[in-house]
Amino acid sequence: MSVPVVGMIGGGQLAQMCAAAATALGIGFRVLANSLTDPAAQVVRDVRIGDHDDRDDLLAFAPGCTVITFDHEQVPPVYLEQLEALGIAVRPGPSALFHAQDKIHMRRALNDIDVPCPRWRVVSALDHVTDFAAEVAWPVVLKTSRGGYDGRGVWVVRSAEQAAEVLAIPLAAGAQWLAEEQINFVQELSAQVARSPHGQAVAYPVARTKQVNGICAEVVVPCPGLAADRAVQAQEIALRIARDLNVTGMLAVEMFDTGDRLYINELAMRPHNSGHWSIEGAVTSQFENHLRAVLDLPLGDPRAVAPYAVMVNILGGDVDDLYSAYRHVLARDPGLKVHLYGKQVRPGRKLGHVTVIGDDYEELLLRGRHAADYFAGVIDE
Amino acid sequence: MSVPVVGMIGGGQLAQMCAAAATALGIGFRVLANSLTDPAAQVVRDVRIGDHDDRDDLLAFAPGCTVITFDHEQVPPVYLEQLEALGIAVRPGPSALFHAQDKIHMRRALNDIDVPCPRWRVVSALDHVTDFAAEVAWPVVLKTSRGGYDGRGVWVVRSAEQAAEVLAIPLAAGAQWLAEEQINFVQELSAQVARSPHGQAVAYPVARTKQVNGICAEVVVPCPGLAADRAVQAQEIALRIARDLNVTGMLAVEMFDTGDRLYINELAMRPHNSGHWSIEGAVTSQFENHLRAVLDLPLGDPRAVAPYAVMVNILGGDVDDLYSAYRHVLARDPGLKVHLYGKQVRPGRKLGHVTVIGDDYEELLLRGRHAADYFAGVIDE
Repeated sequence: MSVPVVGMIGGGQLAQMCAAAATALGIGFRVLANSLTDPAAQVVRDVRIGDHDDRDDLLAFAPGCTVITFDHEQVPPVYLEQLEALGIAVRPGPSALFHAQDKIHMRRALNDIDVPCPRWRVVSALDHVTDFAAEVAWPVVLKTSRGGYDGRGVWVVRSAEQAAEVLAIPLAAGAQWLAEEQINFVQELSAQVARSPHGQAVAYPVARTKQVNGICAEVVVPCPGLAADRAVQAQEIALRIARDLNVTGMLAVEMFDTGDRLYINELAMRPHNSGHWSIEGAVTSQFENHLRAVLDLPLGDPRAVAPYAVMVNILGGDVDDLYSAYRHVLARDPGLKVHLYGKQVRPGRKLGHVTVIGDDYEELLLRGRHAADYFAGVIDE
Repeated sequence: MSVPVVGMIGGGQLAQMCAAAATALGIGFRVLANSLTDPAAQVVRDVRIGDHDDRDDLLAFAPGCTVITFDHEQVPPVYLEQLEALGIAVRPGPSALFHAQDKIHMRRALNDIDVPCPRWRVVSALDHVTDFAAEVAWPVVLKTSRGGYDGRGVWVVRSAEQAAEVLAIPLAAGAQWLAEEQINFVQELSAQVARSPHGQAVAYPVARTKQVNGICAEVVVPCPGLAADRAVQAQEIALRIARDLNVTGMLAVEMFDTGDRLYINELAMRPHNSGHWSIEGAVTSQFENHLRAVLDLPLGDPRAVAPYAVMVNILGGDVDDLYSAYRHVLARDPGLKVHLYGKQVRPGRKLGHVTVIGDDYEELLLRGRHAADYFAGVIDE
């Protein structure tokens, strides 16, 4: 049989959750993991151990893969270009992916295609920040252009003194940072789309996301109370970005909603935490549609199977043994879907998530938060 | 972490589909497969190669498993008793499982607990059949007591001559067979329940199954037009069997519905083809509930997430390359869920299935049948 093989670089929970979708589709699935204890490496049959930024490891991994894709955005673009030069399909391609790797590059590209962004400025000296703050007012958001995730690499500064403190070392090292105006949002949204090389695209219902300390804490889909035209606008923005930046696979566009306007915060070109609900809550999960998209197969229906889906992340707390919570959590809520990634517990680390679907999102949120809190040891009954 | 490990004997598609549920729950999952090309062996990380009826292979497989369970019912009971004697949990236990291994034993036990069965007779000589046929009338169904599945080991005979032809060799070898009256049913049903060692049990909606040549061809859940009291009766029968036979894990009770009465046809003590719809169609799939049950964890909600779910098996036909159908099938029906097991194509072999959920079961059946027929090469558009 001419079964294709998707090779995913990175062995985290996104690769782990893609594995189930690959198994159902009956396609091959190979993972490049850093170690055998990575979430995907614990469960996937075809695991190669190597480093995502080691050229030789990448070159050893790729042969036999129909297409290379990603669990994270940390692979050096130059190596991906070398893979492409060898005739290996890389999706999203390195030039598209670079927008999710370099925030200055992303802001320039988004301005070019005229989608709404916070005002921003490249910062290579302290007075770039103070000049910018004079325009947009303090506080200002400072971001590393590369390498940040889950709130790392982002600082909110309220004065020139605070900015100087954050920037002293990187500016001395010659780094370019990004300053952005702080948007006073009423809620954060995530608009996810899948897009295939032949240009088909589908849009998921728009999610409301809640971040705590820069980490996604909970997701409600569809965003409660979001006006239909605003939801369509969010989907159209995501579809436009996917098309104009030539994204293939899943794209998540995180947005601020001020009530009056939407502003684009971040892009992710892979399955995303804001789409985990889709495993149980959508006809086709983001993981399946990512695989279908990178293989240039027709995409699956992204629509929801219930009025609401709620996902709450399980973050590391004081309890080392997550399994000890199972009996209580599962007995209390037979409708709860638990996903644990097999990671060692560390405070604040994403260890898993729970999803519940149903009619009343407020009730679903109470159920999801209870389970996540119980796993984390925040509550004990 | 005190993560348990479920060890499943048999590497077929049931083990393959359990793997996704085990991954989500974050529990360990080990498979004893006959070869690396078995469906589960292609995708599961912790695979051991061995023979399900080799005592040494079983003894090598079990250590480290929290509980042993099954992809099929072919493991010799005496070896399972030996595992239990070593302190290894086996679920379902060998004395329960034996009812699904030996049809004569099953019929006796079902008569003892007074659940409705076709009339039956143990056959060790030809005149046992002719005497029985004189009571119940021809045709009579002859079954091997052990080892049959998917219609193998079952013959419908219409005369003493036909019976003699079927039985000549086995009776000469001293085998005991089973003769059963043929039930003129209007439809076949499957009632599935999950039961845990501490006695919790949940019942899935009753499925209508359609067999072709003794192989499950399609399933509609819930059974269209089945009166509510008849559905409850079917569920109660399955719950009673699970309790009285001390079944742990999933139990499928296949029944004939004559319109007036239900008759028990077969038992399966594992996830079952009639429950594949539950991956997309139920809050908790049969695979997850099997794992939860054998681990004595609280069971998940078995209810449906849509008014109807339809599953159609993909059976081997003339097309060797199933993947060649993907582009057409997926483009035609974005809501279709495809499951391919990674098996080599052989005519009539179960190679995968498709599931669709929605409001109108007749439309769902057309969609499911089209996809299955297209995969099999029965139709080409």
